[in-house]
Amino acid sequence: MDETQELETVFEQLKKDLDEGNLQEFRETFLDMHTYEQGQFYQSLTEAQRLIVYSYLSPKEVGDMFDVIEEDNEYMKDYLSEMRLSYAAEMLSEMFTDNAVDLLSTLDKREVAKYLSLMNAEDAAELRVMLHYEDDTAGSIMATEYVSIVANQTVRSAMYVLKQEAKTAETIYYIYVVDQENHLVGVISLRDLIINDDDMMIADVMSERVISVHVGDDQEDIAQTFRDYDFLALPVTDYEDHLLGIVTVDDIIDVIDEEAASDYSGLAGVNVEEISENPIKAAGKRLPWLITLLFLGMATASLISHYEVLVSEASILAVFISLITGTAGNAGTQSLAVAVRRLAMNDDKENSFFATVIGEVLTGIVTGAITGLTIFAIVAVWKGNPILGFVIGMAMMCAITVANLAGSLIPMLMDKLGFDPAVASGPFITTLSDLTSVLIYFNIASLFMSYFIGS
Amino acid sequence: MDETQELETVFEQLKKDLDEGNLQEFRETFLDMHTYEQGQFYQSLTEAQRLIVYSYLSPKEVGDMFDVIEEDNEYMKDYLSEMRLSYAAEMLSEMFTDNAVDLLSTLDKREVAKYLSLMNAEDAAELRVMLHYEDDTAGSIMATEYVSIVANQTVRSAMYVLKQEAKTAETIYYIYVVDQENHLVGVISLRDLIINDDDMMIADVMSERVISVHVGDDQEDIAQTFRDYDFLALPVTDYEDHLLGIVTVDDIIDVIDEEAASDYSGLAGVNVEEISENPIKAAGKRLPWLITLLFLGMATASLISHYEVLVSEASILAVFISLITGTAGNAGTQSLAVAVRRLAMNDDKENSFFATVIGEVLTGIVTGAITGLTIFAIVAVWKGNPILGFVIGMAMMCAITVANLAGSLIPMLMDKLGFDPAVASGPFITTLSDLTSVLIYFNIASLFMSYFIGS
Repeated sequence: MDETQELETVFEQLKKDLDEGNLQEFRETFLDMHTYEQGQFYQSLTEAQRLIVYSYLSPKEVGDMFDVIEEDNEYMKDYLSEMRLSYAAEMLSEMFTDNAVDLLSTLDKREVAKYLSLMNAEDAAELRVMLHYEDDTAGSIMATEYVSIVANQTVRSAMYVLKQEAKTAETIYYIYVVDQENHLVGVISLRDLIINDDDMMIADVMSERVISVHVGDDQEDIAQTFRDYDFLALPVTDYEDHLLGIVTVDDIIDVIDEEAASDYSGLAGVNVEEISENPIKAAGKRLPWLITLLFLGMATASLISHYEVLVSEASILAVFISLITGTAGNAGTQSLAVAVRRLAMNDDKENSFFATVIGEVLTGIVTGAITGLTIFAIVAVWKGNPILGFVIGMAMMCAITVANLAGSLIPMLMDKLGFDPAVASGPFITTLSDLTSVLIYFNIASLFMSYFIGS
Repeated sequence: MDETQELETVFEQLKKDLDEGNLQEFRETFLDMHTYEQGQFYQSLTEAQRLIVYSYLSPKEVGDMFDVIEEDNEYMKDYLSEMRLSYAAEMLSEMFTDNAVDLLSTLDKREVAKYLSLMNAEDAAELRVMLHYEDDTAGSIMATEYVSIVANQTVRSAMYVLKQEAKTAETIYYIYVVDQENHLVGVISLRDLIINDDDMMIADVMSERVISVHVGDDQEDIAQTFRDYDFLALPVTDYEDHLLGIVTVDDIIDVIDEEAASDYSGLAGVNVEEISENPIKAAGKRLPWLITLLFLGMATASLISHYEVLVSEASILAVFISLITGTAGNAGTQSLAVAVRRLAMNDDKENSFFATVIGEVLTGIVTGAITGLTIFAIVAVWKGNPILGFVIGMAMMCAITVANLAGSLIPMLMDKLGFDPAVASGPFITTLSDLTSVLIYFNIASLFMSYFIGS
């Protein structure tokens, strides 16, 4: 709390400096802050104040701050458009390539072309290549600001290269070793560089078993490699092993957050990432799912309608519809979550397909049997009708088993067919399980009709 | 695929070396692998083979590997118990303190005391302190292997200190500056150390605005700081600003994964972390939720039972029970997910409480109105009964609005009362919303009874 207040005071002073034109004081205080805090300050300003900021700070200084705040910021476009064109272009070329590309890919093509035409040819060419990598691949999250050296030099000369590049590289904690054709041949951490004697040759101290990722690799798989190996950065190569860029751990944290939010959204049938919306917009995003499921629910309603005679003869049956569909839906949701999670962990998919589905069905039989017995006892006592209790209990057990089957089989099949298993959301499974549960319930009930007509 | 196969071949050779007693070849190949790969190999061995490994590798070498594999490994206990006591104790003291503590905290107290008594006094004292920090706090995930220096020296001499500590420190990429009493007074990154001139004084180049966390801070808040600032490590202090340890980004990735799995589990009403279980055990974990919700579902059944006369007079009402409860449940799940997510982002909780709940209710009114109109039209045409359509549509709209209210209000209240909002799981919200939906539905239907008796 104290630190936040302290920061508030600093922000107040900075705003005063802006308003009163104290360029020197502003620069000193501002540049002394962490880039994240600079970003917090910048985002609290009015447009008029921001325009002064652009005249007080260099494109490089604003670019460093933009590197930190660009993630998930809906206003970046507006910020960009209020800068002079050449200032914005220079700032973009000063940003790390991965972040500049993120930002550019939110603009329309004509605007992108405008900015690229104002940069120096080399930066523009690099960004143009980067803009073509597919979303969610290594190419789309890598930066090109890495440090590379050749093997045929001493630790001392490598340290000298490093000092030159330390100011602009995204990370200097791994140094990649390449041959004449820029093939990745080794890696050495700065830690090893420091530990080893200055006169050692890089070729002798580097590690030749480099873990790298391909430019087209899925970002989720890359995140898994980071988790396994505890790396701070990984090199990205093309299919001929040319070094193209690096992925750093801060980007991987964003990937992990993104994937977690997407799994969570899938389970709930709503995109939880977009939360600062007005009710009309939010409703617009949720309705497609709700209406689709409404039609699936209509199938359940038609099915019950088909059994209406049964219900009119034994209205007691209506009492337990929601209990059976509800409980089966809950069990199906559990199965779904376990199956989707197992797919996400994705070790050894082939074996786990049948193992998961069979495991879930067996779990369904056990939970179904116990839940069924419980409800049998309750109904038998409450309604004084053990036959009715038996029907409800039996239907419950079968409905839960089928819900577990659907909850595990559907996401596994989705995944096998190449779709995102999270499309089989919780609401979809519960709505589908309503249908199967009602079918099971009324079929079992029909068999025992004579025992509770009129009850 | 190629890399995996290559690794398989290496593993085969290593096993042969073990069986044939080629100590030298084994050590060379094994120590050349990344510690994660060493761990993969080690975990593929039989107990007899592991016993040979302990005689081929030093406690330090095994400890380095254990640092990487200890996370979420259920067999660590067994591995530990098959080593000689003194070997295990030395290995534990060679591991990073955070990992050693993780491992020790899975053992019972007598065993912990046994290992601690075999270590040197200093290591044992350090671990004993660490074992007392509460779960999920900075203290429980910090390591004590950091590099600290005093300000009154040159960059050159600091680099010298760093070289000495580089082999044992968990990270050398931030160097923390402390005063005589070990108060944290500054920080300098290795990058800055390298960029600056060798004769500069540390006091002049260090940053005095150090972002640090307190030893009792919640790990989720610490993860947020890592996200914001893109740090690789953060210093941990006590309440008098003494430096106690560091939290590193690899541990934060574990925290983020853990929190995501817990949110996901909460939404589904099942612990998705434990997935390698037999059906009986899995059922045992899921049943408490299912049975609890079964009783809540019984309340809904009693309510319908209360309206049984209504149903027997107009059995058509039974047809739409599951459609209304199902759709409202889907909408409530969406609200829940959005509310829990907003709590997790936790910026400015006070304001967002009412904003979230009111926003969700308004969203519910909009989605409810549109869904209600749709079902009104369908029922009016299908059953040729606009009054029935009106009842269903009206009930749908009210039920969705109430489900959105419950879906957002309950997790927000939970959080305000100091509980984990994820306890209000998706299945809980759908089961509760079954109850409110049925109540709404039959109350509205009662008002219009005369229009569809006998239909």
